[in-house]
Amino acid sequence: MTPSTTRPTTRRTLLRGTVATAALATAGVAPSGRAHAEQPERDGPHIGILLYDGYSLLDPTGPAEVLSRLPDARVTMIAERRGPVRTDTGDVAVMAERAIDEVDRLDVLLVPGGGNRGTVAAMRNQALLRWIRHIDRHSRWTASVCTGALVLAAAGLLKGRRATTYWASADYLRSEFEVTYVPERYVRSGKIITAAGVSAGLDMALYLASLMAGEATAKAIQLAVEYDPRPPFHSGNAADADPQLKERALRLLAASQV
Amino acid sequence: MTPSTTRPTTRRTLLRGTVATAALATAGVAPSGRAHAEQPERDGPHIGILLYDGYSLLDPTGPAEVLSRLPDARVTMIAERRGPVRTDTGDVAVMAERAIDEVDRLDVLLVPGGGNRGTVAAMRNQALLRWIRHIDRHSRWTASVCTGALVLAAAGLLKGRRATTYWASADYLRSEFEVTYVPERYVRSGKIITAAGVSAGLDMALYLASLMAGEATAKAIQLAVEYDPRPPFHSGNAADADPQLKERALRLLAASQV
Repeated sequence: MTPSTTRPTTRRTLLRGTVATAALATAGVAPSGRAHAEQPERDGPHIGILLYDGYSLLDPTGPAEVLSRLPDARVTMIAERRGPVRTDTGDVAVMAERAIDEVDRLDVLLVPGGGNRGTVAAMRNQALLRWIRHIDRHSRWTASVCTGALVLAAAGLLKGRRATTYWASADYLRSEFEVTYVPERYVRSGKIITAAGVSAGLDMALYLASLMAGEATAKAIQLAVEYDPRPPFHSGNAADADPQLKERALRLLAASQV
Repeated sequence: MTPSTTRPTTRRTLLRGTVATAALATAGVAPSGRAHAEQPERDGPHIGILLYDGYSLLDPTGPAEVLSRLPDARVTMIAERRGPVRTDTGDVAVMAERAIDEVDRLDVLLVPGGGNRGTVAAMRNQALLRWIRHIDRHSRWTASVCTGALVLAAAGLLKGRRATTYWASADYLRSEFEVTYVPERYVRSGKIITAAGVSAGLDMALYLASLMAGEATAKAIQLAVEYDPRPPFHSGNAADADPQLKERALRLLAASQV
């Protein structure tokens, strides 16, 4: 399950040196056809990310970016039905490549969070919850980002566990489910890893990458995605935020969502 | 152009309190239909993000997450043709809602980076470059993430400017174009803002949000997406990385790309 990083050189590892230089040197021999979702040659971990109407865009895509760089990994976006699945703003859609009834096993299941409407609908969708429970029975890791923890909790997977979620949903997670809320970027409880809000999925995915492929590979992935965060402000932690800032943040969120 | 944050309450700003609580309280009256890309009521900034075959998933989606929370903002994914556009790994596709010939004006144009194949193809795609130049003539802000800077440079927009790009593409940007490479997370030169690799788009987008809507709004967006980064490692800065780590990062990237 921990793919070797010294496996034999393949066609794709011939690209060396700086990305741009390698690109220009090899562009002539690069495959000209359009890539598609079938990657039968990838025998590394299969990472499945559940999409549902109203998810928040960065929740699935941040971890997908990180985990897709694990050696020989496959990332599959999955939803109740195949096809485009819209975010909480309604503006953007990511394609679901597989329907839930086409996916029976995953090495990693990741459930993103969403806006109010999307999260609540997912928490009440018995077909989704049944599928989550089924996949979790055999998964190596089951993870969530943001209010995805509420969906895992609704599926019964967080009972008696320590977990985190979006800062504004912490009280709800604590009061409605038998969960010990821990205000960290990510929390591991057995094979279940929950992340805090939206962007916390990046930190969680690097941690998960280290569990799956070792620290050296996870560190290399961090460099590959140049994750040396330097936000212009330091207002991302709810514990340090005053009530006005919290109110403003939740208003912006609500106003952006359909 | 700087939307007021005290604009009159609309249907969407009625959601208050914690996300989950508001969600459960209002789920019964939430629109049940599927959201779609038409948001004619949003009269704030129109942000267009260019997709091309082989972009890296986080490059467009990180900034989209942040900028979509600007008051009344619209985010439109745009490509040469409408429809799903695949990432560098071939596993994931985001829908382009509009074709370039359907978009004549944007407040913000953002060009993401991609893998070798995708970046080179975009740099050579004259239709894309023409469209980028056309949009830039009237845009309020033109931005790039990662090797998207090479695409802006190929379009002639970075001539004589200070800019940043993906760490492994810095030498190429410097040597092939009349650009002063600056190793920062994001660099502003007039109305053009370039970001470093992949995840740097998040930092850049918060900075851009502050330019467009003020610091108070940008800080609230940072809290809205809980961007209080705490990666488990500190290996994301190429200036601190040893040659082995760089080689490993580039190998992982190349191996993950189709």
